[in-house]
Amino acid sequence: MHSSLSQILKEIKPLDREAMEAARSRQDELTKPRGSLGRLEELSIKIAGIRGEIKSGFEHKAIVVMAADHGVASEGVTLYPQEVTRQMIFNFLNSGAAINALARLIGARVVVVDMGVLGGFEPNPALVCKMIDFGTHNMARGPAMTRQQASDAIQAGIDVVEDEIAKGLDIVGTGDMGIANTAASSAICAVITDEAVEKVTGRGTGLADEQLAHKVKVIQKALEVNRPNPGDPIDVLAKVGGFEIGGLAGVMLGAAAHRIPVVIDGFISGAAALIATGLAPGLKDYLIAGHVSAESGHKILLEYLGLPPLLNLGMRLGEGTGAALGMTIVEASVKTLTEMATFAEAGVSKEKH
Amino acid sequence: MHSSLSQILKEIKPLDREAMEAARSRQDELTKPRGSLGRLEELSIKIAGIRGEIKSGFEHKAIVVMAADHGVASEGVTLYPQEVTRQMIFNFLNSGAAINALARLIGARVVVVDMGVLGGFEPNPALVCKMIDFGTHNMARGPAMTRQQASDAIQAGIDVVEDEIAKGLDIVGTGDMGIANTAASSAICAVITDEAVEKVTGRGTGLADEQLAHKVKVIQKALEVNRPNPGDPIDVLAKVGGFEIGGLAGVMLGAAAHRIPVVIDGFISGAAALIATGLAPGLKDYLIAGHVSAESGHKILLEYLGLPPLLNLGMRLGEGTGAALGMTIVEASVKTLTEMATFAEAGVSKEKH
Repeated sequence: MHSSLSQILKEIKPLDREAMEAARSRQDELTKPRGSLGRLEELSIKIAGIRGEIKSGFEHKAIVVMAADHGVASEGVTLYPQEVTRQMIFNFLNSGAAINALARLIGARVVVVDMGVLGGFEPNPALVCKMIDFGTHNMARGPAMTRQQASDAIQAGIDVVEDEIAKGLDIVGTGDMGIANTAASSAICAVITDEAVEKVTGRGTGLADEQLAHKVKVIQKALEVNRPNPGDPIDVLAKVGGFEIGGLAGVMLGAAAHRIPVVIDGFISGAAALIATGLAPGLKDYLIAGHVSAESGHKILLEYLGLPPLLNLGMRLGEGTGAALGMTIVEASVKTLTEMATFAEAGVSKEKH
Repeated sequence: MHSSLSQILKEIKPLDREAMEAARSRQDELTKPRGSLGRLEELSIKIAGIRGEIKSGFEHKAIVVMAADHGVASEGVTLYPQEVTRQMIFNFLNSGAAINALARLIGARVVVVDMGVLGGFEPNPALVCKMIDFGTHNMARGPAMTRQQASDAIQAGIDVVEDEIAKGLDIVGTGDMGIANTAASSAICAVITDEAVEKVTGRGTGLADEQLAHKVKVIQKALEVNRPNPGDPIDVLAKVGGFEIGGLAGVMLGAAAHRIPVVIDGFISGAAALIATGLAPGLKDYLIAGHVSAESGHKILLEYLGLPPLLNLGMRLGEGTGAALGMTIVEASVKTLTEMATFAEAGVSKEKH
């Protein structure tokens, strides 16, 4: 049995202050000058607050990569043909994509989810099928999906993460694949952060100036046609979102309800986080921004969420690649907290005062 | 038999342009938008140039942590008693320090080297003894060491890395331990970059404002008393350096001569890089800055070296902790280059033009 969205929203609790205090005290007793591990220290304290105790490492790690197609691709907002979404699913299943290489490096499993890819797939035990429809409708001409589909997409994400929790899950990263999904993400970002479309729209897979200007116009048109309500995250998702974006929002919410830290990837995961934190503001404390991508708008989005990114490596691939690398830093933070000796244990002198 | 410094300096060759071209071409064929892995792509190309071929991963990884004491500690430039250098050696050997936790995480061995710690050690197979003297002299009153000792320290670093290469070494990180060694590093940095002492002097393990002002004065005095010659790196090392700083310079030079990538840690490793690149400007191409530390001056130093840091996590611990985390990013870059499928292999459509 899976939890419903309304159950999940009730289960997202504040961080455990006692566990955080214990982590903070332990950090100050470890054999290093106070604060000298910088953001690793803060992170280890946040993770203790999420998990409700100081636990060593993460035995079970997963990157959930959700894929779907976007009707807005027909407006010429991307360099790649739409069939690439489907082709990349096979690449994930054959372990040939960037996320496969990085997940192997960090010892995480990759969970590939079809949230609504054009053409569909034969049943495949390695592919999680949560298909809502064969791609969204073109948001420049009307809503991308129905309100029911938006709710279904979020629920599918909850179901996926609860199934992974049943298999064993200590930390989860989010990833995406979907030709034209930066356009949907920019639309969501513009609505929720109230920034101008130009400021939150980037080159995606590599648009030239003229193509970028066209993309901005298409997104502006989508917002005019649909008038999404910024105070109603499901309305925003339905009108200008995507199935994988809804699914990722569900993954985040489901993980948080079960006190599992979530490392979010780039711009698309960020858009999903905007939807998800709109539904549950307390979710923010369970999210860690793996990196800031080169996609303009991601920085604005992370500032809006109040999530400082761990890495800044000029990446803009998606798939969860930034989440995977960020997960290593999270793991490092926990390893230092739990594996280092204290001053007393090591017989090392403390600072003079 | 180990190589001499003069042999090593002759063996540091330019990067292999052919291998770099091959890596660049392969990056453009991999299943991702061109350039979308950002700095990972650049890094993988640099690594191919260093190694002279596209090789998968790094089987043998080591962090070389060199420790020594500093006479200038008696001037009150640090919060910790000097015996902490020695105590931390035992902590390293007992696997209780931050670098032990991080090296375990990334699968690297930790090579602990006594370059000149006060008190000395009983023979211990887990501790590499290259002790030059029981700490340096107080640089505020005269040269920290003799010119011969400076040369010996560099040679010791070459010997250490060549011994590690004999055991198997595909990538090396540098780390340090030495109470008061940020003072020596600031002095080196001021001399070689020609920046004001105030600009390159930081709080080390956590000095307050007044203590920081005192540290600046001590370093200024050391420079006035010794007048190191910025054009003569061995003179700079001898007058205001440290044994571990000389040793780390030797590790960098020795690794580069054997075409092994070097991930440098924070401010102290950076000071060693200033000495080493002064001896062999071509060394720079073999160095990767693992992170930029919170120690003010490190950013200036990295800009002088032209080495953009991979990480910026507010760390300032030393020991090679920033190098260890940076090494994961380097490994990620190589894994994506060698393990990802090409568009042709995966049957994925390329971008439209």
